[in-house]
Amino acid sequence: MGKGRLEAFSDGVIAVIITIMVLELKVPHGTDFDALIPLGPIFLSYLLSFIYVGIYWNNHHHMLHTVQRVNGRVLWANLLLLFWLSLVPFVTGWVNENHFAAVPVALYGFVLLMSGVSYYVLERVLIAHHPKDSQLARAVGDDYKGIASVVLYAVAIALSFVNPWISCGIYVFVALMWFIPDRRIERASPET
Amino acid sequence: MGKGRLEAFSDGVIAVIITIMVLELKVPHGTDFDALIPLGPIFLSYLLSFIYVGIYWNNHHHMLHTVQRVNGRVLWANLLLLFWLSLVPFVTGWVNENHFAAVPVALYGFVLLMSGVSYYVLERVLIAHHPKDSQLARAVGDDYKGIASVVLYAVAIALSFVNPWISCGIYVFVALMWFIPDRRIERASPET
Amino acid sequence: MGKGRLEAFSDGVIAVIITIMVLELKVPHGTDFDALIPLGPIFLSYLLSFIYVGIYWNNHHHMLHTVQRVNGRVLWANLLLLFWLSLVPFVTGWVNENHFAAVPVALYGFVLLMSGVSYYVLERVLIAHHPKDSQLARAVGDDYKGIASVVLYAVAIALSFVNPWISCGIYVFVALMWFIPDRRIERASPET
Amino acid sequence: MGKGRLEAFSDGVIAVIITIMVLELKVPHGTDFDALIPLGPIFLSYLLSFIYVGIYWNNHHHMLHTVQRVNGRVLWANLLLLFWLSLVPFVTGWVNENHFAAVPVALYGFVLLMSGVSYYVLERVLIAHHPKDSQLARAVGDDYKGIASVVLYAVAIALSFVNPWISCGIYVFVALMWFIPDRRIERASPET
Repeated sequence: MGKGRLEAFSDGVIAVIITIMVLELKVPHGTDFDALIPLGPIFLSYLLSFIYVGIYWNNHHHMLHTVQRVNGRVLWANLLLLFWLSLVPFVTGWVNENHFAAVPVALYGFVLLMSGVSYYVLERVLIAHHPKDSQLARAVGDDYKGIASVVLYAVAIALSFVNPWISCGIYVFVALMWFIPDRRIERASPET
Repeated sequence: MGKGRLEAFSDGVIAVIITIMVLELKVPHGTDFDALIPLGPIFLSYLLSFIYVGIYWNNHHHMLHTVQRVNGRVLWANLLLLFWLSLVPFVTGWVNENHFAAVPVALYGFVLLMSGVSYYVLERVLIAHHPKDSQLARAVGDDYKGIASVVLYAVAIALSFVNPWISCGIYVFVALMWFIPDRRIERASPET
Repeated sequence: MGKGRLEAFSDGVIAVIITIMVLELKVPHGTDFDALIPLGPIFLSYLLSFIYVGIYWNNHHHMLHTVQRVNGRVLWANLLLLFWLSLVPFVTGWVNENHFAAVPVALYGFVLLMSGVSYYVLERVLIAHHPKDSQLARAVGDDYKGIASVVLYAVAIALSFVNPWISCGIYVFVALMWFIPDRRIERASPET
Repeated sequence: MGKGRLEAFSDGVIAVIITIMVLELKVPHGTDFDALIPLGPIFLSYLLSFIYVGIYWNNHHHMLHTVQRVNGRVLWANLLLLFWLSLVPFVTGWVNENHFAAVPVALYGFVLLMSGVSYYVLERVLIAHHPKDSQLARAVGDDYKGIASVVLYAVAIALSFVNPWISCGIYVFVALMWFIPDRRIERASPET
């Protein structure tokens, strides 16, 4: 089977996820600058979630670029990733509603952790579906960055019960780490 | 007419359906783990609906893969399927709001039943539009699995008035039955 | 310019319109069949709006099928159509909230009227952008059906102040009239 | 990397943005014409935001049309633009809620300003990624119109504290200025 519809469907789902998050930004009732102050952290958490979903879209784009074919297993691994990403707006909303309390911040990390694990699963399913030493396999390699992210999320979840701001700092750090898209694949793939 | 836009439009609608369901997940007000407990069944019903919509997308993907052309009848049969699928978020919300009461659980089954019937109609309209003994016709065959699902949904609707949890069990069973995408078509279609 | 992105964007917008309408279907609080009775007319109006948006998508699909190129004017005529279609969920919601009162029913007709006019404008802009006697021009012809619909909507708007149910009857009649997609174009265009 | 998915994802996000804005149009409770009067300015602001997002889509369409390849930087510059556009429904809602008060009108201009700046950044990143004197570079030139828009937004933000209606007038003026899509690119690109 071709990968065209898998890409189109993923693009659609991620586009909706990234956009409905803004519905969480409730219109303030005041009309002066003070009315905007409580929106500050909400805006920042929206920005962080936007960047995270953007990172997943970018990496998905890069990874699928080197893929030649998909099968039923790939479709389901991809849906698993989309499922966890679809929970990002929910946990972003919970974090905001509770001013960065411990449990919501930990749950935010949990959804990131499961998204990271799902992405890793998708990566492995795709590599297994391709011949050994495929362009994809060489480009992804052992994916230390993906594994490091998952470990960092787990640390952040544990630390959220000590101080949620440390966890938020870790989430920002991982986002920065991924900000640069997967150069390995870009390098491995010929310009088109 | 080509099938490209039919696929693109279906991808768009299904992407929105699968993603707006998460808007039903209302942010809890508490900040501790106890606040998450009432979300448990809601989360599970969200997961089940996500899997159901995912199954339809996967099967739609597999079925359309073998299709060569579409006509006005196919467009409408496809819209009928999308109509019933678009009601999945609504019935999922009603089931959750009422803690799995009999009538909501029956209505959930009814929407699944009508989705199943619509999918079957789409299948037949597509087969009728293709030459006899087409790749599609051979791949789909008599579609015993599709018919069995519809029968099981009908049984579940009846049983929801005895015990809604039996019905939920049947819904989970049918989902598991479909979890593996339609191997018949994957086998019948050459790798691309 | 190619027509690919125009089709993709229109598919996206129409997919969102047709799906967010279901968000208007508020979950009832009761758990028995009686709780569903007030949903009856709401469900029917949702169904009618779904069919209308579906008709526009189908006709858009048929019309664009014969188009070879687009320009800036086409993009704007297309956006005008999408603008009026995007108001369908709003007027559907208003009709439902007020149990088919005169003004909401008239406004529903007004949005249909403006959608019909916009579609006609798009048709003419596309024909003007193609050589005389193009496949598109021959297929569309004078579009008596499009003009008749607009006249019928105008009649329905006027009659809504006499009896809104007559107007609803006219809306259903026009929908039935369009239910069969534009055979002229399907006939004029070679199978692909 | 090809530009196909970048276009598809942008189409998806912009389609969702342009359509969820209509969710801001709250259904009025009355059933007569008077109930529609308070909706007048809301409708106009919805129309203006629809036109702005439409302009960005049109220009994005024109610009990407001449692009041959994209890289990681382009993906992020594009996401930056989508981020600011995704805030348009939020600021439109705030302007409406507060009957065009000074601060909301200024914030509306700020989001337009940041969208304009992001578009300019995307333009420059794309030009830098192409050979000197590419079709894109020649078509865009110095983009005086883009720079003028950003300056006008800045003026409108400042003037919103004098009289918000002057700012609204400037927003309408810039929209009219852009209403005609970028002829430079259309002229520079051969008909396809």
